[in-house]
Amino acid sequence: MRAAILRNHQFQVEELATPQPGPGQVLVKVRACGICGSDLHIFKHADHMVEQARKLGMPALDLERGVLTGLVLGHEFVGEIVEFGPDTTKALKVGDRVCSMPFVLKDAGPALLGSSPDTSGAYAEYIVLTEALCLKVDDTIPDQAAAFTEPLGIGIHAVNKAALQTDDVAVVIGCGPIGLAITAVLKMRGVKHIYASDLSSSRCKLAKTMGATQVVNARVASAVTTAALEFPSDRLVIFENTGAPGMLGRLIVEAPQNARIVVSGIAAGEESVMPMIAIMKELQISFIIYYTADEFAEALAAIRDGKLEWRALVAGTVDLEEVNGAFEMLGNSDVPGKILILPHQTAAS
Amino acid sequence: MRAAILRNHQFQVEELATPQPGPGQVLVKVRACGICGSDLHIFKHADHMVEQARKLGMPALDLERGVLTGLVLGHEFVGEIVEFGPDTTKALKVGDRVCSMPFVLKDAGPALLGSSPDTSGAYAEYIVLTEALCLKVDDTIPDQAAAFTEPLGIGIHAVNKAALQTDDVAVVIGCGPIGLAITAVLKMRGVKHIYASDLSSSRCKLAKTMGATQVVNARVASAVTTAALEFPSDRLVIFENTGAPGMLGRLIVEAPQNARIVVSGIAAGEESVMPMIAIMKELQISFIIYYTADEFAEALAAIRDGKLEWRALVAGTVDLEEVNGAFEMLGNSDVPGKILILPHQTAAS
Repeated sequence: MRAAILRNHQFQVEELATPQPGPGQVLVKVRACGICGSDLHIFKHADHMVEQARKLGMPALDLERGVLTGLVLGHEFVGEIVEFGPDTTKALKVGDRVCSMPFVLKDAGPALLGSSPDTSGAYAEYIVLTEALCLKVDDTIPDQAAAFTEPLGIGIHAVNKAALQTDDVAVVIGCGPIGLAITAVLKMRGVKHIYASDLSSSRCKLAKTMGATQVVNARVASAVTTAALEFPSDRLVIFENTGAPGMLGRLIVEAPQNARIVVSGIAAGEESVMPMIAIMKELQISFIIYYTADEFAEALAAIRDGKLEWRALVAGTVDLEEVNGAFEMLGNSDVPGKILILPHQTAAS
Repeated sequence: MRAAILRNHQFQVEELATPQPGPGQVLVKVRACGICGSDLHIFKHADHMVEQARKLGMPALDLERGVLTGLVLGHEFVGEIVEFGPDTTKALKVGDRVCSMPFVLKDAGPALLGSSPDTSGAYAEYIVLTEALCLKVDDTIPDQAAAFTEPLGIGIHAVNKAALQTDDVAVVIGCGPIGLAITAVLKMRGVKHIYASDLSSSRCKLAKTMGATQVVNARVASAVTTAALEFPSDRLVIFENTGAPGMLGRLIVEAPQNARIVVSGIAAGEESVMPMIAIMKELQISFIIYYTADEFAEALAAIRDGKLEWRALVAGTVDLEEVNGAFEMLGNSDVPGKILILPHQTAAS
């Protein structure tokens, strides 16, 4: 099979052996896979991540091997079952389309797909999944819509972590795919006041499509300050999705008394904050990256029920050969929405 | 009246005009007042706090004036009503002993006692309070016990913020008065596993008296790691009460997956943290400093009901002349428990 392998900060398409499903596993033909901000983070910062982990005495062996021998990323996928391994229930059938949380269950515990050489991700024509984690994708859901299950799951998780009430005031900082997913979930949950902010006006516009009731261009004003002038401070829930250097420290300074901050944006290194300010304001900061199985299933159901304007979120599609170009574009500009990889599409098709 | 005034990093006892209660206010003769860690913070870092606030464009005018003209600190007090101002209900009587949240209500909002030259604190023979905020201290409660209402209120607030269940595992980092108050509240709430940690073995011993089920000397081992080896990581609630430089960053590294951290310790300046690590572990960090009126009243009721081993918490008592020495001692050693000021006691008495 063909796969886009990350080596030396570059993707190259190579022919690999098609993986074989082991006990309890299925072989899935990848129909679409989103490019995630965390993929972009690995693309840019893998060396630094390994170095930091080493410094802290934490395990980074998988990523380290990946950096050396090459990684197949990709964890926001939808695909079609083509083969069952031994010891499978076959409750789903060959030809069924599925999504899955991006883990394969191993004896040692769940292993994240697309983050180590042992668990190849979906920037490839085929992928091996754990049958028990596969959710059937309803026939009415297009491939490209189903590929948003994973980021939408993070949006649901972020909003759940904030324990948001409909009268609370959400301030979404950064309208990349996660900020937009959070905005969409806030709308689904009936939150009445949703401020969204980004440096890019096209992303701000997209946030409006997703359900933002007010958008603030971050070059012009602070969405936090704007919202805090309008509403009681203890109703403010700030979602930080940029991972921009200095942003966490800045939000601690800008946040009003008793605000909650939910951080999904991955800052690369050390960040300087003023705990004194956070204490005086009794801020609560929740860091998030995953979702529960229920939240993942809820995301797929929301897409099935037409609650996500997914068409507006597709910034473009690429084939495997074009992954390099897509990453360069994502690294250099604020692409509005998500780029999806269609591994079985070729430039000619 | 006599008061201990903080000027140029030194307390000196001066004769001041006894304050007059305004409308809705009462004059209270101070019977005891605890020395709080935040008083110590102002004692050491007032200049730095003003400078930081300036840098951030935040208001620090009161503290700044205080640094220049002198401050009367003190917000953990119990006293006796001696006079009523105009427009008071007189529901309480002259001679009644009272506690109060350390605010006076002004037209511009509540003003914190003991933090500005306009709202003198209780390191003095007399203090003016808002009648409506005064809670009667039951005759059965000794003065020195009642002086713990305020720090115990913070303990209750900290535990409430963590939404702790009895099966959760608490790890109390730093067993100064707030860490000890938190430990006492954890015991009151029936939390089964309470780890407490401090560099000082006498403070560790005191934590055991307060209800810690296990103590870990921080010179020897990490209480977080010790607890995480014994219990599921998502049950861990870490209370950081030291404010020690680097402690927040270290706890983020040490905390296990899904742990909650409640921060009451006031670090003086900027702190470096690794958001990436907090994100991978989905940590939640709540910063706290206050309490609600209900929590304050609950603290006084708990003391009345004999739920706090307050006698063990009294490290010593001083008169106004001895405040300087007490602060020097608190600044240079890990005093086990709290030092109380008895403003009407004299060295001779």
